[in-house]
Amino acid sequence: MNFELDKSIEILRNTPLVLKTMLDGLSEEWIKNNEGENTWSPYDILGHLIVGEQTDWIVRVKIILSDSENKFFEPFDRFAQFNQDQTKPISDLIIEFKSLREKSLKELTSLHITQKDFDRIGIHPEFGKVTLKQLISTWAVHDLGHIAQISRVMAKQYTEEVGPWYNYLGILKK
Amino acid sequence: MNFELDKSIEILRNTPLVLKTMLDGLSEEWIKNNEGENTWSPYDILGHLIVGEQTDWIVRVKIILSDSENKFFEPFDRFAQFNQDQTKPISDLIIEFKSLREKSLKELTSLHITQKDFDRIGIHPEFGKVTLKQLISTWAVHDLGHIAQISRVMAKQYTEEVGPWYNYLGILKK
Repeated sequence: MNFELDKSIEILRNTPLVLKTMLDGLSEEWIKNNEGENTWSPYDILGHLIVGEQTDWIVRVKIILSDSENKFFEPFDRFAQFNQDQTKPISDLIIEFKSLREKSLKELTSLHITQKDFDRIGIHPEFGKVTLKQLISTWAVHDLGHIAQISRVMAKQYTEEVGPWYNYLGILKK
Repeated sequence: MNFELDKSIEILRNTPLVLKTMLDGLSEEWIKNNEGENTWSPYDILGHLIVGEQTDWIVRVKIILSDSENKFFEPFDRFAQFNQDQTKPISDLIIEFKSLREKSLKELTSLHITQKDFDRIGIHPEFGKVTLKQLISTWAVHDLGHIAQISRVMAKQYTEEVGPWYNYLGILKK
């Protein structure tokens, strides 16, 4: 499957409601338990997605498309969510993410990106030149990766409970 | 986290809407592409979940709780979805799954399961004795596993498009 802006937006647009549907109203254990030391709970993952919306994705899109000659991206802080108020209910995080994502997509659309912009570049702090097309593809894949991660973290809460089915459930071994 | 019937139902109840939110209205490529030979597309996975609702989960719950002395489960056909009409739109599959899951949960509730039923047993065709608690836990984990799988299959459609970010995206290597 080749990159298309519209098909990428299909994924990006769905994510807030997917997360709401997966998490809103669940018992605290499904939301706050993780996979063990130094791993993330669904709550932490949602916090990480919020920080990405605030500081990373659309900011980098705009760097690539700007007239400025400075194309360097700021490094992304993968742990910034742990500095946030951890007592906020998940429903607040869901609303916040939804609103930030809507704003990001509005900005993305307002940039009137065309095919000839897809190969314009930015400079990633670790691996150098990346294209707009790669950035937007990664944004969508990043969403899908964290949806899969949330599902896996939740599934693992029942690792001890599935008995002999354990060997049939690949998700518990990832 | 220990098994609780209500907490398991929280997951089982959400799944139809999670799948609808993830898949309904997406371009055909997101829905019908898979991870390569002998792997499943999101469309195939939804078909598999439908067959599970029709022939497996609640049927096995009822075997465990029935007065009959025959506690043997029928083997589950993991490929039955490929015998179904493959031209049905995914929106029909989503509606079908939602309606079957609602029916299953209505039946589950009507059985008035209490804590003393949790350790009642059935006989699995491959690994023998399993408890009601293990069966219902597995049902929930099975849902979560397939949600994660759908996310992964979709993410992989962009494997070639993410460029140097590939190494940061664990989901593409699973």
